[in-house]
Amino acid sequence: MASMLLSRQLTCCLQQNSRLLVFGHRYISQAAAKIDVDFDYDGPLMKTEVPGPRSRELMKKLNGIQNAEAVHFFCNYEESRGNYLVDVDGNRMLDLYSQISSVPIGYSHPSLIKLLQQPQNLSTFINRPALGILPPENFTEKLKESLLSVAPKGLSQVITMSCGSCSNENAFKAIFMWYRNKERGHNNVTKEELESCMINQPPGCPDYAILSFMGGFHGRTLGCLATTHSKAIHKLDIPSLDWPIAPFPRLKYPLEDFVKENQQEEARCLEEVEDLIVKYRKKKKIVAGIIVEPIQSEGGDNHASDDFFRKLRDIARKHGCAFLVDEVQTGGGCTGKFWAHEHWGLDDPADVVTFSKKMMTGGFFHKEEFRPNVPYRIFNTWLGDPSKNLMLAEVIKVIKTEDLLNNATHAGKALLTGLLDLQARYPHLISRVRGRGTFCSFDTPDDATRNKLITIARNKGKKLCVCG
Amino acid sequence: MASMLLSRQLTCCLQQNSRLLVFGHRYISQAAAKIDVDFDYDGPLMKTEVPGPRSRELMKKLNGIQNAEAVHFFCNYEESRGNYLVDVDGNRMLDLYSQISSVPIGYSHPSLIKLLQQPQNLSTFINRPALGILPPENFTEKLKESLLSVAPKGLSQVITMSCGSCSNENAFKAIFMWYRNKERGHNNVTKEELESCMINQPPGCPDYAILSFMGGFHGRTLGCLATTHSKAIHKLDIPSLDWPIAPFPRLKYPLEDFVKENQQEEARCLEEVEDLIVKYRKKKKIVAGIIVEPIQSEGGDNHASDDFFRKLRDIARKHGCAFLVDEVQTGGGCTGKFWAHEHWGLDDPADVVTFSKKMMTGGFFHKEEFRPNVPYRIFNTWLGDPSKNLMLAEVIKVIKTEDLLNNATHAGKALLTGLLDLQARYPHLISRVRGRGTFCSFDTPDDATRNKLITIARNKGKKLCVCG
Repeated sequence: MASMLLSRQLTCCLQQNSRLLVFGHRYISQAAAKIDVDFDYDGPLMKTEVPGPRSRELMKKLNGIQNAEAVHFFCNYEESRGNYLVDVDGNRMLDLYSQISSVPIGYSHPSLIKLLQQPQNLSTFINRPALGILPPENFTEKLKESLLSVAPKGLSQVITMSCGSCSNENAFKAIFMWYRNKERGHNNVTKEELESCMINQPPGCPDYAILSFMGGFHGRTLGCLATTHSKAIHKLDIPSLDWPIAPFPRLKYPLEDFVKENQQEEARCLEEVEDLIVKYRKKKKIVAGIIVEPIQSEGGDNHASDDFFRKLRDIARKHGCAFLVDEVQTGGGCTGKFWAHEHWGLDDPADVVTFSKKMMTGGFFHKEEFRPNVPYRIFNTWLGDPSKNLMLAEVIKVIKTEDLLNNATHAGKALLTGLLDLQARYPHLISRVRGRGTFCSFDTPDDATRNKLITIARNKGKKLCVCG
Repeated sequence: MASMLLSRQLTCCLQQNSRLLVFGHRYISQAAAKIDVDFDYDGPLMKTEVPGPRSRELMKKLNGIQNAEAVHFFCNYEESRGNYLVDVDGNRMLDLYSQISSVPIGYSHPSLIKLLQQPQNLSTFINRPALGILPPENFTEKLKESLLSVAPKGLSQVITMSCGSCSNENAFKAIFMWYRNKERGHNNVTKEELESCMINQPPGCPDYAILSFMGGFHGRTLGCLATTHSKAIHKLDIPSLDWPIAPFPRLKYPLEDFVKENQQEEARCLEEVEDLIVKYRKKKKIVAGIIVEPIQSEGGDNHASDDFFRKLRDIARKHGCAFLVDEVQTGGGCTGKFWAHEHWGLDDPADVVTFSKKMMTGGFFHKEEFRPNVPYRIFNTWLGDPSKNLMLAEVIKVIKTEDLLNNATHAGKALLTGLLDLQARYPHLISRVRGRGTFCSFDTPDDATRNKLITIARNKGKKLCVCG
């Protein structure tokens, strides 16, 4: 089934403008008009089909220097504001796509404009340091104002990275080091380990694995890619690692009609997780950690119950594996909580939580026991970018001041109600309506229908998004 | 032997201020005073030992939220200018370290300040797009002004990435895809390939490898790390791939006294490269590409002759392997050419050249035949950052306008002459003096001596750098 997802953007996709949402759906507008939208446009405005002639011209030019076939259209970011993305042909679209869910508070937000105009911030943008060795004076302070002010419960430590893939790669490394330290009982490293690791061999490079789920997406670098299983196009022709892959529950909707079936489906998947850990251990490949998304996003907006995740966390603990929650796409507030996994009500927090996209910087939170025991083990030249931390501190201030988490909850409820209504009216087009906060989606019967809906919506001034 | 390296920074490490260089060396000053240094300080100014009390206080705070033991000191970037890095205790140091070689034209360069102050650039800094699908109007133009204006000969294609590791990871992927397309004769992908790749298995995930060199450094994500062999601390406890590792020549200095020995050493290494390709092919692991740095930087500033690299390129072609030159550390002009591998005089250009650091954005150039045949194969959410492309265009303008490549050549010659003189005077402290452009280094007898020299220099206001 083809999935379509709606509104990965926290703030304001669903304010009064969303009365213009596809299919003329009108429920949402009153519920969510909470934030100051003085800077926003009052609706879409279409002048050409999209991509228009200027976009097509630019696509041709770009295609001369790189494969540009993935380009939707070229944008005029100077003119884009709030929820509205303006293209180079002057078309203004309501953006429920948010740059693959990476824009936290809309385009050209006044708070960020102001931040850029303050002379004292200029140096942060032009003098990018090697953060791990020569941080700026306000480094810790900005991390406390930004990331640590929203840290998941129990995770006191944070490391920044430049992107989502690097965040997961380094989280894996922190997990492998933690596991190996447990195994060797915090004894000294042997000469054999030091020598064998230089030639990629055990015991220095142990045969550890990260268990992932079919349908998951965790990035496209080689380590991440070994845990990504959403689309063949990501993985074809790239060598990989023999790491275990468990099935992710395939829930039936509406949930209330399939309680028992869904419980059985989740139990089946959890059992498979345990079986894989044992099976791989038998062939001397140790599962050091389990990675999971709170909602499988790229893989088709696949949800599971809070209970499933709590039990998965228990399995990780039982088998001594680290529990890594990948919040690269779900983090930042769009589900109504800052981190989607906060909905689960875990007794024992996740061990590691990765982020990027709407957080503007990549990185990961972790428990203190996952702290590298020696400097330079989790390290690279830039280790993120203080200019992104500076902007993130401002973004989080806006999210708090404008109560945007509640906004996402209310707007999400209105959106879901509206989608359910549409599903009832057009069951041949829309099925499996689901969502948490504004992180909503539905299935269409096939790719052709989906692509047609996307195109119609875009040419009516609403940019939607595809997954799965 | 412990190595110390000098002056990874292109511009101006060695202007009139370098009369203050460690050991009272005075040769360099006249040769290199070419660029406008109105904005620069006129010398170091030390107030405390480094790290000073304020740095120590901040290190303690940072250590509460992450391992901060790698921090040298905290910096006041607002006050840092040109070659001079100012710390939070008011110490001003001549910086020959350049943030692990990642600062292209010094701190707080007036051209970059001006760029940030122009209102038309503001949007680029606050509206970060998903470049692969929704690029800004000036995307191609900025790539042409920046990266493509300095593209290595024969490489017409360029893709941007967020950091050096992602650049190499994606270059590997482009190479694997290219190799597999060659193998399958550009026929259709089979169902078996599409299905097996989803579970990390061949034939969809073929058993391909990248050949690397002992002592090389190509990044720290799992794919890159399988080609990195400079220090155990990078690799310990991280699972890896069985990819072939060739010896890198260990040249004897002074070069003119060891012509024959060095030729033999290089021939030995090249022979081993060929042997490994054949040996791995026999065990069904195909070497799809060879990665090499023009100067092994992190691994100890290990050089080889231009002839060595030309022959290596020939071996790659002979065996059908892609030839990937990693210019993450050497690129940007410090060797006196924009790309260090331009010194080699290759007949057939490298296939892929990766960059990051001084280029402000990561990414790679490649020949047209390495262009992904389908969109979304080389892809991620951000694919770099247009604000970095904007700054890079300005940086390259400065490099050209101020003739900084020649500056690096002249300053480098003066530096090398001075170091050779020091070596003659202090042979018990300094040996194996070597360099290209300002990319200079020497060995010390042991780590203790090296660390002592670094500390003395730093407390005299010169920040040097360690490798190997």
